[in-house]
Amino acid sequence: MEYPSKLLTGIVNEIAKLPGIGKRTALRLALYLLKQPVEQSENLSQAILNFRKEIKYCEVCNNISDEPVCDICSDTSRQHRLVCVVEDVRDVMAIESTGEYRGVYHVLGGLISPINGIGPFDLSIDKLLKRIENQHIDEVVLALSATVDGDTTNFYIYRKISELPVQPEITTIARGIGVGEELEYADEITLARSILNRIPFEKSIKQDK
Amino acid sequence: MEYPSKLLTGIVNEIAKLPGIGKRTALRLALYLLKQPVEQSENLSQAILNFRKEIKYCEVCNNISDEPVCDICSDTSRQHRLVCVVEDVRDVMAIESTGEYRGVYHVLGGLISPINGIGPFDLSIDKLLKRIENQHIDEVVLALSATVDGDTTNFYIYRKISELPVQPEITTIARGIGVGEELEYADEITLARSILNRIPFEKSIKQDK
Repeated sequence: MEYPSKLLTGIVNEIAKLPGIGKRTALRLALYLLKQPVEQSENLSQAILNFRKEIKYCEVCNNISDEPVCDICSDTSRQHRLVCVVEDVRDVMAIESTGEYRGVYHVLGGLISPINGIGPFDLSIDKLLKRIENQHIDEVVLALSATVDGDTTNFYIYRKISELPVQPEITTIARGIGVGEELEYADEITLARSILNRIPFEKSIKQDK
Repeated sequence: MEYPSKLLTGIVNEIAKLPGIGKRTALRLALYLLKQPVEQSENLSQAILNFRKEIKYCEVCNNISDEPVCDICSDTSRQHRLVCVVEDVRDVMAIESTGEYRGVYHVLGGLISPINGIGPFDLSIDKLLKRIENQHIDEVVLALSATVDGDTTNFYIYRKISELPVQPEITTIARGIGVGEELEYADEITLARSILNRIPFEKSIKQDK
């Protein structure tokens, strides 16, 4: 497709670099902006620039934060000896929204992915190991995606922690049939895990609210 | 959802103002930008600002253009007495890509839509009428979407042209069964139109390439 203007070509090409957005959608978005007040484009443009240039990461847990130490890490009412390892800020937000976790986090910033050229040193794994060595941590909860990359990363972290002089307990989140999900549609591996890792019925009753 | 950073909240809110993009997608896009070189965000930000602030419209046809008169309107090899009325630049691009139209365009910049508060004076209809009065135009092709808003706009333009002292021929693009489309799946109205507006078979053979 040929665009009648270089400015239009420019905005379409830049928007279409975003994942999941093709040139047709990019054109639709550009034309939408044209019909909105100029302030909306100014705000969008500024928000992108501010975010990318000024974003900071928590010195402790590596989560996105405006302060040197994030709100969760500076909250003294939380259990700082319980650290949940997650891929990125979305997982922190998802777990926080359950209201069931009172520990702190460690944000890796990605998963080990040889196919995408991401190795252990691109992630904040060293920072996690130092944290375990220097602080007193009782339990590390591995809460990564159940994918090949997630499993690779889980295993790498598990091995690295095992080599440390101090040994926190290492746990991982339960895999099983989702609440409200039908048994017959679950895949075999998930179903097998949910049977192998069964829990006392009384415990599950207490968790229902 | 609560975001751990005001900068993150800012970018997510601004991106989520775009049509068809929710907060979850906006967050995904923001985190994507974070993993790309800072130049990509700078380019995106600048492209949005440049486009919105410096975009110009062709003095003749109202299409998006970098020059005061667009490439199509300044092309002397085109038929300037044949004007195709379209909603926006996407329609110009779509018709141009067929390679079958050698006339010029008039871009309305939208459709009359009472429900969205868009009246005739928000569009470049007056400019079209002046163009018909001042230039010699043989034929005006109405090529708007076959929607309620499109029909309203078609009818309004048709009536306004009828009131002019000069009368170009007014035509509209053919509605019918798409090429390669199956008859049984077409809606009744389209099928009815395609029967009522049937054309000599020999003419259709000549159009096949």
